[in-house]
Amino acid sequence: MQRQILLLAACCIGLSTAVAADKVGPAPNGITLPAGYKDWRVISVSSRTDNNTMRVILGNDVAIAAAREGRINPWPNGAILGKVVWKSDKDKHWEKAVVPGNLVHAEFMTKDSKKYASTGGWGYARWLGLDQKPYGKDANFANECVACHTPVKGQDWVYTRPARFP
Amino acid sequence: MQRQILLLAACCIGLSTAVAADKVGPAPNGITLPAGYKDWRVISVSSRTDNNTMRVILGNDVAIAAAREGRINPWPNGAILGKVVWKSDKDKHWEKAVVPGNLVHAEFMTKDSKKYASTGGWGYARWLGLDQKPYGKDANFANECVACHTPVKGQDWVYTRPARFP
Repeated sequence: MQRQILLLAACCIGLSTAVAADKVGPAPNGITLPAGYKDWRVISVSSRTDNNTMRVILGNDVAIAAAREGRINPWPNGAILGKVVWKSDKDKHWEKAVVPGNLVHAEFMTKDSKKYASTGGWGYARWLGLDQKPYGKDANFANECVACHTPVKGQDWVYTRPARFP
Repeated sequence: MQRQILLLAACCIGLSTAVAADKVGPAPNGITLPAGYKDWRVISVSSRTDNNTMRVILGNDVAIAAAREGRINPWPNGAILGKVVWKSDKDKHWEKAVVPGNLVHAEFMTKDSKKYASTGGWGYARWLGLDQKPYGKDANFANECVACHTPVKGQDWVYTRPARFP
């Protein structure tokens, strides 16, 4: 009985903190949340001291193959990069360690040099918080993304460089 | 021809910076490098300001299921946690961003409450650098790991708490 209560509790926690991907609305430019992105493999990690965040950068199969083979300038069509971003928090047990706190958002860049030609060949989308609210009032939100990515136009608009794995 | 030279160059770079998992020697306690760990899914990320490093924490299928279902105190037998650790570096294009620099090591905790009873139910192993040199002079190296993990004995000897995903 205790086990059943525990399972029920675990189930309720799941329901209250996450929304199924197919229930999440599209971004204002029509891009939908990539299914199964939480199972994608790692390209890199990064943190920012200007807004106290840390993140993991994931890739779909096309992006992972490109990252491992060094085909990233340009990235191939079909590549999707996903960033999951958390507020940085202190580790309770290691004073000088920084760990993920609250989730900020998950954001994606989808490469399609024709379809997204007006935004540098990448389709941008972002979903805020655990309830994954689509970011942006209308499709023009992507101009904000492009502006921020302009310093890395020379590396196909992508900040992330694949981390070196053994 | 130019394309062939480029492919050959890419191949040589691959050979010079990574060693195939089956060519990597075991840790002094006999633990072997988990095959395919670079394809494992993400449990969390962390960084340390005391030694200027950042890392991703990956899990095998048993660990990922446990992390997602909240079965982490204790973690189930068969769970393996992998940490890939890099020196922290500055992003060239975003002054306040921190990104992975040189690889430091990949290290693992394997849960087997009987086999590794003498080290808290976890088998420890670490491989240094891109050439994945096993860490430790002899099997006693694990005492060092246990000492460092003693502050988190109450959470089954594991520092990492699964990051909140949407």
